[in-house]
Amino acid sequence: MDSAVSFEKLTEQFRRMPGIGAKTAMRLAFYVLELPKNEVEELAETIREAGEKIHRCPVCCNLTDEELCPVCKNVNRKHGLICVVENVESLMAIENTKEYGGVYHVLHGVISPLDEVGPEDITLKELLARVNEGGVEEVIMATGSNVEGELTAMYISKMLKPLGVKVTRLAYGLPVGSDLQYADSVTLSRAIQGRQAL
Amino acid sequence: MDSAVSFEKLTEQFRRMPGIGAKTAMRLAFYVLELPKNEVEELAETIREAGEKIHRCPVCCNLTDEELCPVCKNVNRKHGLICVVENVESLMAIENTKEYGGVYHVLHGVISPLDEVGPEDITLKELLARVNEGGVEEVIMATGSNVEGELTAMYISKMLKPLGVKVTRLAYGLPVGSDLQYADSVTLSRAIQGRQAL
Repeated sequence: MDSAVSFEKLTEQFRRMPGIGAKTAMRLAFYVLELPKNEVEELAETIREAGEKIHRCPVCCNLTDEELCPVCKNVNRKHGLICVVENVESLMAIENTKEYGGVYHVLHGVISPLDEVGPEDITLKELLARVNEGGVEEVIMATGSNVEGELTAMYISKMLKPLGVKVTRLAYGLPVGSDLQYADSVTLSRAIQGRQAL
Repeated sequence: MDSAVSFEKLTEQFRRMPGIGAKTAMRLAFYVLELPKNEVEELAETIREAGEKIHRCPVCCNLTDEELCPVCKNVNRKHGLICVVENVESLMAIENTKEYGGVYHVLHGVISPLDEVGPEDITLKELLARVNEGGVEEVIMATGSNVEGELTAMYISKMLKPLGVKVTRLAYGLPVGSDLQYADSVTLSRAIQGRQAL
């Protein structure tokens, strides 16, 4: 049917979002149209404001709307321990464990020759500058355990080692609560290699 | 973790949308933050514009951003045949069948005493005015086949019959392509009652 142009534009905008199909996009568009005018305005303003205010933390490249991100600003965290992550989602996942007291470095991507993402496309220059400034004792590589994550971890490790900083990698092994018989052989062989004394 | 205030506000806005959980809301917020500035602006503007421009068609209460909705504006449709639907989604579903050549009336709800929605909360006044104006031959009740849909259909039927207009209801029966053994007994008994000559 010929529906309203503004409605179609709105549906199209939702349709582009990750994980949103045609039906959900339409449902979201109807949701917006049924909101009171002031709430539509508020939604539009929140999006605009986020786009304007949120920027990368000049230290760790985490997203923030203040000068420094909340992690870098926190004086109680160990600023000599840097955990390198691919994206802000990974950072949040680590924060949720409440186990980590250091700071972060967000790469905003991984080195991936197939996707034409090279070392200069992620925030390596910023990481190098931080380590060169001194005071960094350990860098934990927390990129994914897939090919690109591994490649990026290796690259960064080679880049930082000459500077005399300790570089570590997250442990590989069986996920907690998993059955041994269902583990894939690569994970299992890594778990054997990385076995620890009890 | 303490994340950016604008980010949390944005996530919260997505979280309120129908069918969007906490993880999806966060994914959508990241999507917005990774858009180029001008596209964020465009998204906000599309939402604002839709909220401002889209209004109910003064004839049938369909949503439109022009004076009349595309269905009411179309002179090739039968304006004496009105299909009464609960919402714009239902209207679109019927339009998609490409079987219907009449016009619509969108109730924007159903009578539901439990939810405190009475006849005055849906667009009955507008429907009555259209029928009173004359020229309407048939009104097809296409509300849902649940309790509220039935109640609304009965109410409207009683309201319109004294005006001498023919009121019909969508057929009940087996969904096309279904197996008889899996049909619920209410649907099956309706299918028997509504049997037609071959």
